Amino acid sequence: MRPISYKVAANLIVQALPYIQKFAGKTVVVKYGGNAMTSAATKAAVMQDVVLMRCVGIRPVLVHGGGPDINQALTKMGIESQFVGGLRVTDGETMEVVEMVLSGKTNKHIVAEIQKAGGQAVGLSGKDGGLITAEKETANGDIGFVGRIVKVDTSLIHALLEKGYIPVVSSVAAGVNGESFNVNADTVAGELATALKAEKLILMTDVTGIYRDFADKTSLISRMSVPEAEAMVGSGVIDKGMIPKVQSCITALRGGVGAVHVIDGTMLHALIVELFTDQGIGTMVEM
Amino acid sequence: MRPISYKVAANLIVQALPYIQKFAGKTVVVKYGGNAMTSAATKAAVMQDVVLMRCVGIRPVLVHGGGPDINQALTKMGIESQFVGGLRVTDGETMEVVEMVLSGKTNKHIVAEIQKAGGQAVGLSGKDGGLITAEKETANGDIGFVGRIVKVDTSLIHALLEKGYIPVVSSVAAGVNGESFNVNADTVAGELATALKAEKLILMTDVTGIYRDFADKTSLISRMSVPEAEAMVGSGVIDKGMIPKVQSCITALRGGVGAVHVIDGTMLHALIVELFTDQGIGTMVEM
Amino acid sequence: MRPISYKVAANLIVQALPYIQKFAGKTVVVKYGGNAMTSAATKAAVMQDVVLMRCVGIRPVLVHGGGPDINQALTKMGIESQFVGGLRVTDGETMEVVEMVLSGKTNKHIVAEIQKAGGQAVGLSGKDGGLITAEKETANGDIGFVGRIVKVDTSLIHALLEKGYIPVVSSVAAGVNGESFNVNADTVAGELATALKAEKLILMTDVTGIYRDFADKTSLISRMSVPEAEAMVGSGVIDKGMIPKVQSCITALRGGVGAVHVIDGTMLHALIVELFTDQGIGTMVEM
Amino acid sequence: MRPISYKVAANLIVQALPYIQKFAGKTVVVKYGGNAMTSAATKAAVMQDVVLMRCVGIRPVLVHGGGPDINQALTKMGIESQFVGGLRVTDGETMEVVEMVLSGKTNKHIVAEIQKAGGQAVGLSGKDGGLITAEKETANGDIGFVGRIVKVDTSLIHALLEKGYIPVVSSVAAGVNGESFNVNADTVAGELATALKAEKLILMTDVTGIYRDFADKTSLISRMSVPEAEAMVGSGVIDKGMIPKVQSCITALRGGVGAVHVIDGTMLHALIVELFTDQGIGTMVEM
Amino acid sequence: MRPISYKVAANLIVQALPYIQKFAGKTVVVKYGGNAMTSAATKAAVMQDVVLMRCVGIRPVLVHGGGPDINQALTKMGIESQFVGGLRVTDGETMEVVEMVLSGKTNKHIVAEIQKAGGQAVGLSGKDGGLITAEKETANGDIGFVGRIVKVDTSLIHALLEKGYIPVVSSVAAGVNGESFNVNADTVAGELATALKAEKLILMTDVTGIYRDFADKTSLISRMSVPEAEAMVGSGVIDKGMIPKVQSCITALRGGVGAVHVIDGTMLHALIVELFTDQGIGTMVEM
Amino acid sequence: MRPISYKVAANLIVQALPYIQKFAGKTVVVKYGGNAMTSAATKAAVMQDVVLMRCVGIRPVLVHGGGPDINQALTKMGIESQFVGGLRVTDGETMEVVEMVLSGKTNKHIVAEIQKAGGQAVGLSGKDGGLITAEKETANGDIGFVGRIVKVDTSLIHALLEKGYIPVVSSVAAGVNGESFNVNADTVAGELATALKAEKLILMTDVTGIYRDFADKTSLISRMSVPEAEAMVGSGVIDKGMIPKVQSCITALRGGVGAVHVIDGTMLHALIVELFTDQGIGTMVEM
Repeated sequence: MRPISYKVAANLIVQALPYIQKFAGKTVVVKYGGNAMTSAATKAAVMQDVVLMRCVGIRPVLVHGGGPDINQALTKMGIESQFVGGLRVTDGETMEVVEMVLSGKTNKHIVAEIQKAGGQAVGLSGKDGGLITAEKETANGDIGFVGRIVKVDTSLIHALLEKGYIPVVSSVAAGVNGESFNVNADTVAGELATALKAEKLILMTDVTGIYRDFADKTSLISRMSVPEAEAMVGSGVIDKGMIPKVQSCITALRGGVGAVHVIDGTMLHALIVELFTDQGIGTMVEM
Repeated sequence: MRPISYKVAANLIVQALPYIQKFAGKTVVVKYGGNAMTSAATKAAVMQDVVLMRCVGIRPVLVHGGGPDINQALTKMGIESQFVGGLRVTDGETMEVVEMVLSGKTNKHIVAEIQKAGGQAVGLSGKDGGLITAEKETANGDIGFVGRIVKVDTSLIHALLEKGYIPVVSSVAAGVNGESFNVNADTVAGELATALKAEKLILMTDVTGIYRDFADKTSLISRMSVPEAEAMVGSGVIDKGMIPKVQSCITALRGGVGAVHVIDGTMLHALIVELFTDQGIGTMVEM
Repeated sequence: MRPISYKVAANLIVQALPYIQKFAGKTVVVKYGGNAMTSAATKAAVMQDVVLMRCVGIRPVLVHGGGPDINQALTKMGIESQFVGGLRVTDGETMEVVEMVLSGKTNKHIVAEIQKAGGQAVGLSGKDGGLITAEKETANGDIGFVGRIVKVDTSLIHALLEKGYIPVVSSVAAGVNGESFNVNADTVAGELATALKAEKLILMTDVTGIYRDFADKTSLISRMSVPEAEAMVGSGVIDKGMIPKVQSCITALRGGVGAVHVIDGTMLHALIVELFTDQGIGTMVEM
Repeated sequence: MRPISYKVAANLIVQALPYIQKFAGKTVVVKYGGNAMTSAATKAAVMQDVVLMRCVGIRPVLVHGGGPDINQALTKMGIESQFVGGLRVTDGETMEVVEMVLSGKTNKHIVAEIQKAGGQAVGLSGKDGGLITAEKETANGDIGFVGRIVKVDTSLIHALLEKGYIPVVSSVAAGVNGESFNVNADTVAGELATALKAEKLILMTDVTGIYRDFADKTSLISRMSVPEAEAMVGSGVIDKGMIPKVQSCITALRGGVGAVHVIDGTMLHALIVELFTDQGIGTMVEM
Repeated sequence: MRPISYKVAANLIVQALPYIQKFAGKTVVVKYGGNAMTSAATKAAVMQDVVLMRCVGIRPVLVHGGGPDINQALTKMGIESQFVGGLRVTDGETMEVVEMVLSGKTNKHIVAEIQKAGGQAVGLSGKDGGLITAEKETANGDIGFVGRIVKVDTSLIHALLEKGYIPVVSSVAAGVNGESFNVNADTVAGELATALKAEKLILMTDVTGIYRDFADKTSLISRMSVPEAEAMVGSGVIDKGMIPKVQSCITALRGGVGAVHVIDGTMLHALIVELFTDQGIGTMVEM
Repeated sequence: MRPISYKVAANLIVQALPYIQKFAGKTVVVKYGGNAMTSAATKAAVMQDVVLMRCVGIRPVLVHGGGPDINQALTKMGIESQFVGGLRVTDGETMEVVEMVLSGKTNKHIVAEIQKAGGQAVGLSGKDGGLITAEKETANGDIGFVGRIVKVDTSLIHALLEKGYIPVVSSVAAGVNGESFNVNADTVAGELATALKAEKLILMTDVTGIYRDFADKTSLISRMSVPEAEAMVGSGVIDKGMIPKVQSCITALRGGVGAVHVIDGTMLHALIVELFTDQGIGTMVEM
């Protein structure tokens, strides 16, 4: 590897130090998913970033979904999915596969990657230690085991953070009778950030951030307040596919999270660059 | 439910009290599997027993495999297994299914059941917090991702026990490069019990205990020392199917575990009756 | 001892588990006295119950008087007592005997019994660590060293409970100049329960509970609210001898104690049956 | 009270400071008894001294017998004692009185006095928390419930010292079946000092110290080593009545106690003067 | 040294005990300066007093200026000072000398003296751990690096007190850019006492206390309330040189300090006599 | 400031992470002095490096001398120094100036710089908390208050590190009577590193490292073992001016320090580059 010049090192240290001091001891929830999850190089970079965050005293919590893995497993098992209003109807058989993939494959894979990067990770689902309790989501009729979060108990997360572990949480919740619910991972991340009174919620997507007009790459919004975000959602300016994410941001900020960042997880070390340098990448939403 | 007579209550209290006092603060590793895992009533009873153990100050750790679930999933996915010397050849595709089932289905199901019984459980695999590191088992040639344990790090288990959680561990280990290995669940339980310096290792099977002659139900061995066990293995007296379990017992006892019990997990509340009453059920092996 | 059938064990566990979980970490003050104190079998059963409570995480505190022992010692010493309005006039000489018996005989005897049952007990009087400060009770004129509680300092009790000890408290209090006062043991138990914000106060008597009509054994009251209790005291329905106990219950409940139980201490293991089974024995008073 | 001149204050501070620093955090066992217990002024002074010791960071533990009180109570109850070789034959009836007086009267009286002086005291007997276990002393034949110490468990003492309490221990021990034994208070103090690895054991008597010839008041021994003490016992030089005390000293020093002091408890504030000034009063025995 | 009579010892103990108990665990800020700092005997006595305070559980904090040392060093370096309205104009060169003397000479000298007396002292200036932040005092025009306190952060003081150290603080503060400011030592002591919610602030001066008329030595005020102090300042009764000190007292008391004492630091052991005896010396101001 | 490219960030993170993990929780003693102390830019860079070290979990301890400042102050005061064998004869008057400069000027200046960089620093001399005790160095005859270290007590350093403070230590020690001694700063750093069982001792000089031949800049030694170092000292290969530093390295390594680095303090951020990148700068000496 090419040696780093003293000038560059100096530059970085001078830039990073105040951020490192500012975030020490703070909790940062990172929603990790999409394409950032598929490339081996990107995955390794994200895990290194998370471990580095922990090294400088930040308390990172990872939340993940697992889109592509789920589809692949359902296909292998010959299970076809129905969709209602764009949402997958999750019957019992599908839910079993979803849970196996999320909590048994994706989750443990992330854990293993963090361990390889030198961190100490613990893979959890919302069932562990009563972390997330859900009930059936009926806003769009009965679409099976799709859950709406009704309770978050962060005791286990706190216990693990206290001991230096990095919790990795799959987006599966428990019903009151122990049944499994699939919950949107952005929502899990938002609710967890709120319950943990996190300093930041970082949503890693596969786009650079929130655009005024997604087709126009120059229309990226660097910084946005909650009222601005609400106005843009209301006026239809924000790209339709981004609306759920923007709603998640607003809810988390209303719930007390310090700031929400939407960043491109496919950029190497986007997390660290966003947290520790003066450069803004992606979109930051604040109250 | 029928009221309990004072006499019976008195009886039980007088019997149980010295055992409760003796085991308070002690770690007990329970290998849970086989048929005890399939009946809903038996499962509920085991979970209640484990929660009760925790209530009286014991530190239970559950280890599980997941036989029938794995076969069912492999069949669904149309994956056929090769067997070499009675052992399944575990190629990459098979290992992925094995891990999903063990860590994503069976494990989280047990966690949900303990939560329902009022306990606080955390589902782990050997990958979490570097709990179990394995390398390829080559004693029987290359049979794929079947692992031999090379390191156990109990820090995470201790952290969870300290906070009152009941750890539930699936028998999947991590290789040094983060790859997954399937390890025999009895072996995991034995190694964990040894590393935790457990007071007891309890192997829940679907037979009553160890027999001199499995065909002769009157030949159950109540209590056995390590030299006796070794002699019986050597002389071929012990039933062949029991030999791996007996070997596990011997290794654990040599490693410092106080006693190993082989009990019938299909008997309701066998765990509590074995731990807290004068009645011997199953087989106890001691140094 | 007769082996216990699995059915009975299952029954008991299913019943007891939710109660054990509910009371874990809670403080329960037990007033122990009367005939429950005279039979060796009953005494041993009470001590086993108290030790079992401690084993399942409850924090029991025992309070006792010592009626028969006091009379016996006074007789031996040839000290005759005067009675005013049913209350013994306690002059200095009498008080000295009362204290010796309560704090030196009955108290240490209970401590030794708990130690024998495997618990760790510490015998205290209200003088130790400034636990209970009293002044002369003058409601019925000057009847000597009969005290009215003016201050309770629970620091010592908390310190002992924290370390796993079972405090055993005799009903002797200190005046501000270090003199001794005899205080009614039910009152001591009630005030201590209040100061400790106890979950329960259990008064062990030699009757089954509170009756509407003591002569009619079918008129036992299972459960009663404070307003009902007050109404019954007001209307003269409650048996006269029970009025002080009922007043103690009301005061404790008003002071924040969760529930007060009046049970028959002569029934073997009445404490455990009352706490851990669905069966109601005796009378429970709640707000 | 007469104002103290600055010179005197200066004098005292300069003298006391190094001793205070030397003994901070150290445990000092004080055997309190004899005539020092009978005068109100002396008692008050001893209690103030003990409280002051605690204030400057010393961990005092008081042990007491109760000679005159016992005789008085036995007389009142019309119980006559037999003596064998100078030792009281302690039958069951006598033992009951002895225990009541020691643990119920003398002990609680000392506690109340310490509380009055502003300290926090807890009165214990050897029964509490399994502090002292004894068995029948048979060296002089069967003389009843006179005990020989077989086990000391200092957990309770440590727990109380840790929280700032001053333990006050009566010389009654428990047998393995919970029965009571009377043990010589000097012996209790010595064994306790040994088990606590005390810095000092101070025996408060009613003589100035150990004399070569008790009749010759100029023969007081200021300082003595264990070999010297043994030689003097052997040669019959030491006064016969002092021999048991000297034996206690030797045993304690052999057991690891730093130094043993024999001082005159009837001198006001002898404890403080002995501990904190350059003046030697009484006799100090060291290894 | 002359032996101390038992009577005197008794006298002292009886007097001191309630004060020692009252102040245990309390913080006492001592401003040390003036002539009390110049005589070797007085210095040694003050240090012994401070160490004794620590031994009996008080948490002393020393604040000092360093008048004569500063003048001497300035003279040696040939730096002449300008005075405006009685205040030294402190240019950069002067400030450097002032800081070197206060933090490098006087401060470390006091530390060494406390260590010699057996205490554990840590010398600090207002710069250490962000203890005291100041800005330029401009009330009297620009007189250079004379500071006005704008922030006190007591974390470091608390950390040291917790570990048994005696903090010794020189009256130098840091500006927000790390520059040095000279602050009046009485003011530093007052602000520190306020921020620490100290029980007492003791100003050691070289006069006996506050006089109505400084020329009339019989007009010493023993005890004064804040309103009285304010009235006397207002009416010009209080000696002019004492006004800043009295203002410091009033500010500290308003800020929550329990009491302020002005005592003569040249009297040997004045600190201890003031704290622990009934004798009033100097002047005490209370709310 | 120029934005940093992702490539560079990635590069740095990948390089730094394993070092950060390796040194987390470890103590690193940094001797800071010479020219690195004179340039404002270099000073600021060193302080930022030290604060960054603390942020990533390292426990840095700074030791400093103060050459140029001392000469300047002595000159100002008109004190001329005698030299014996290259060592300054330090009489009482000189020592007073040396101490004022080191502990009152240089030390507090470094503290203020660290505070400005966002760290929490505490300036100490060897006198504080009994940190370093010295006696007169007489190896070269009587050259006054030049000290030889006889005792190091690291309690205070540990207490401060535990609470997150960065200790800054001037090279002044206390004699047993509280007098001041000037000790070579390299020696102080070495002894402190040894007593703290430091992972690393870093000597910041104004040369690039240790040369075989100082005149030949290509002869820099990157890595050297203790035997090699001794051989080179023995054979006269090492530059004479470097011999004391090399001796310090050897002593520290013999005393258990993990590694000693000699680096050029005038290179910006040399500390961080040396610790956290693969690039070797300067000379590293190991066992």
